[in-house]
Amino acid sequence: MTKLAYEDFKPEREFPLGPKHVTAEEIVAFASEFDPQPMHLDEEAGRASILGGLAASGWHTSAMFMRMMCDSYLLNTDAQGAPGIDFMDWKKPVLAGDTLSGRSIVLEARPMRSRPGIGIVKFRHEIENQRGELVCLGENATMVRLRAGAEATA
Amino acid sequence: MTKLAYEDFKPEREFPLGPKHVTAEEIVAFASEFDPQPMHLDEEAGRASILGGLAASGWHTSAMFMRMMCDSYLLNTDAQGAPGIDFMDWKKPVLAGDTLSGRSIVLEARPMRSRPGIGIVKFRHEIENQRGELVCLGENATMVRLRAGAEATA
Repeated sequence: MTKLAYEDFKPEREFPLGPKHVTAEEIVAFASEFDPQPMHLDEEAGRASILGGLAASGWHTSAMFMRMMCDSYLLNTDAQGAPGIDFMDWKKPVLAGDTLSGRSIVLEARPMRSRPGIGIVKFRHEIENQRGELVCLGENATMVRLRAGAEATA
Repeated sequence: MTKLAYEDFKPEREFPLGPKHVTAEEIVAFASEFDPQPMHLDEEAGRASILGGLAASGWHTSAMFMRMMCDSYLLNTDAQGAPGIDFMDWKKPVLAGDTLSGRSIVLEARPMRSRPGIGIVKFRHEIENQRGELVCLGENATMVRLRAGAEATA
């Protein structure tokens, strides 16, 4: 199977993300290792917080979004990693029992001057819960190889 | 023990982060769940990539940084969650065997208009490896409660 290359990421192309069901066990497991604040570990502490229930760490939501990207298109892409996150807004709490889905939309793409044969693709990412409420919104860029032989004309 | 409150986060105050040793097992475990791209799962694939070795997912580095923040000051703070990430740059690969450390520096702080009794503290975060090379740089804000009774004068 031919992998997606830089040339396949045209502006406005959309890739669906999810669905991903979020369990209390997953929220507590991630938080125990990476973000052991009470509202991410305990239902009662979550309800007492401004998050309103046992809520995923924003970093957990971000990690789940990464997995959704992998499953949607990234594992089928000649991807070379990402230089970072332009921004990520955690708009609403992700609570135990929620189901997440969304989309990655190509904003722009250009060949890199510093790395011949590699292009940089900038995405906007939107994640919603089962009620259609936007819970996570972000933008970042990913490095993707041009098709073999494409360097000369890039 | 009295927790840190909004008033304790004065601009320029620094909190040390780490050290955190990063093992190959941790890199593969995180990647298997959240970012199963070959360079995060396999030493040889990592060496063949532009990352140069078995490298942590940027989201894994970010999650480890979150844990370093918790251990340094956040679990001892009356914190109410974070609205997101202003930006995060993964400047250099984090490879198996690296040891990470760094600092969070308060950039600014102000009471929130929309949430009486809560202030927003903006941080700059810097993470370095054992050679003193900057591997991760970011900024984000955290919501922190004012001391009880402080609302009236905020």
